[in-house]
Amino acid sequence: MKYWNTRLKKMAEYIPGEQPENLDEYIKLNTNESPFSPSPVVLDAIKKAADASLRRYPNPTTMSVREAFAKRNGLTAENVFVANGSDEIFTLLLRGFVDPEALAAFPYPSYSLYYTLAEANGVQYERIPLTKDLDINFADYLKKRYALVIVCNPNNPTGRGVDLGALKNFAGKFKGLLVVDEAYVDFYGETAIDLVRAFDNLIVTRSFSKSYSLAGLRVGIAAANADIIRGFIKLKDSYNVDRLAEAGALAALADQKGFKYNVGMVRDNKEYLEERLGGLGFSVVPSKANFLLVRHPDVSAKKIYEELYARKILVRYFAGAVQSEYVRISIGTMMELRALVKELEAIIKGE
Amino acid sequence: MKYWNTRLKKMAEYIPGEQPENLDEYIKLNTNESPFSPSPVVLDAIKKAADASLRRYPNPTTMSVREAFAKRNGLTAENVFVANGSDEIFTLLLRGFVDPEALAAFPYPSYSLYYTLAEANGVQYERIPLTKDLDINFADYLKKRYALVIVCNPNNPTGRGVDLGALKNFAGKFKGLLVVDEAYVDFYGETAIDLVRAFDNLIVTRSFSKSYSLAGLRVGIAAANADIIRGFIKLKDSYNVDRLAEAGALAALADQKGFKYNVGMVRDNKEYLEERLGGLGFSVVPSKANFLLVRHPDVSAKKIYEELYARKILVRYFAGAVQSEYVRISIGTMMELRALVKELEAIIKGE
Repeated sequence: MKYWNTRLKKMAEYIPGEQPENLDEYIKLNTNESPFSPSPVVLDAIKKAADASLRRYPNPTTMSVREAFAKRNGLTAENVFVANGSDEIFTLLLRGFVDPEALAAFPYPSYSLYYTLAEANGVQYERIPLTKDLDINFADYLKKRYALVIVCNPNNPTGRGVDLGALKNFAGKFKGLLVVDEAYVDFYGETAIDLVRAFDNLIVTRSFSKSYSLAGLRVGIAAANADIIRGFIKLKDSYNVDRLAEAGALAALADQKGFKYNVGMVRDNKEYLEERLGGLGFSVVPSKANFLLVRHPDVSAKKIYEELYARKILVRYFAGAVQSEYVRISIGTMMELRALVKELEAIIKGE
Repeated sequence: MKYWNTRLKKMAEYIPGEQPENLDEYIKLNTNESPFSPSPVVLDAIKKAADASLRRYPNPTTMSVREAFAKRNGLTAENVFVANGSDEIFTLLLRGFVDPEALAAFPYPSYSLYYTLAEANGVQYERIPLTKDLDINFADYLKKRYALVIVCNPNNPTGRGVDLGALKNFAGKFKGLLVVDEAYVDFYGETAIDLVRAFDNLIVTRSFSKSYSLAGLRVGIAAANADIIRGFIKLKDSYNVDRLAEAGALAALADQKGFKYNVGMVRDNKEYLEERLGGLGFSVVPSKANFLLVRHPDVSAKKIYEELYARKILVRYFAGAVQSEYVRISIGTMMELRALVKELEAIIKGE
């Protein structure tokens, strides 16, 4: 660490879910990817973009996607920023919109990248525990003058959604920057995107990695007032989204039929898994996302994780208060979920 | 700018070369892209990667490219970092390897992104003028305790290369972090990459945007000692390079035949342009890159830029001391260069 600066040395590293090299040997239910392929329409658009034009830099702000997303959501391109995954949006947020001496607040448990990025950028922050039902109590975020709050809705890893009325009420009272991370909103959620026009301190973020089956393409979107979007564009690298990602995201937004088909299958499979896990005695946190946070009265979460791992099924186990009582299971194909249920049954029986 | 933080408000914006929407109407010689298509082998590899696996996150560190690049350069994967364009490398450098109170030094004129990124990250810096021959005098960088120096070799926008012996000598004396930006090294340059094993403070960066004709794909590489590479990986976003960029870069590294063919054509065209511009009375700075920095005794650079612009030929004009005396012309196809020479001839004659 001889040439690392002070912050880089001090910050805790973000640990993403395991991505084993021999992927085909595993049933992988640990990073909330879609179990279904992107639609052929999207793949064809990407192939078509793989031509001589790759010698050219991409459009600096991915304008075609800004326009398409804006149109679909009653906004203008000025309200839309396109990023190399929504992680880039959070990185830029912590770099450009909070001064190091300011104080941010994030729910706990939530997407732990928020905490990592605050540390990486020298931003002070508080982790505010969820209620015992794993919900957000917005009043907690009005007790101090927080410069930034990120609400993941539905929340990762709990799957819990917030009430839009309560969110709107909070947005009206809160003086800092309010970010609603809607990476999982497409499955069951209610979006806050219509509030962007009403609140100049509201940023809504989206991802193509879950509901659009494009985790491998790296596209995220932020919707906010034009002044905030200009800030993102000023701070980002000149060409942050490549030509193929632009082509794929544009086709994915246009192909709502393929999108709804995939999302519908995830919902069906989620209901199946919920029912079967209930039958095995699991408590399942009611989820609005493409994953379930579950625990069992007789077997610890850590043991379930380890036993599944030994059987080549990857689910997510997080260390730390509250969340270490659970495992998080991404919704897979029916075949994957049947195999999972069979192994869980054996683990519970001690087989 | 209500929600922008202090640094975002204060920093000067980086202005990339113009990317007009109606590209086909222009001869575009302003951003040093390759005028030639990536090879069919590379395009096929990308198309093949556009499959169901896009639903999965990419490999977090783009391991296949790390291994291939390491092997080709006598390094190990531990010495190699893959980024979303080399711009991402410079951003991470300024974020994670220099403390804000430290002082960096960059040559001037050089790639102005270095200055922008220092400002964006609150890093102090000095711009050290090149000699009157537009060369670097390494002794200038030993006069103070600089924490970071970035040497662009060959330099943008001058095209001048540094002597490797002088660079090695400097690396041995310099106590801070020494970055050699080799975005343009493949055309005529001598690489410093063999010095990475000898100096723990040396980082060599490469780009796929110029010699590999893949500006639209966004891939850059840093080679350095394993400790520095670990720092990059700790600080970067979890999945910074997408699956298609990984597939394309891997195929491009393997296809040295296609690579050499394209680079050879650029060199041929550069020699043609140099000769013709000389014939028109231009002074041409001797260049080791895929562009020429030129000026004419009778017509100002600004006027040349504007006249060419009016004739739908884009070249680069930079405001500021020294560089505003010149225009920078990227090497194009023979057809493009013939059209350019014809228009320049007319402009000089006042037609």
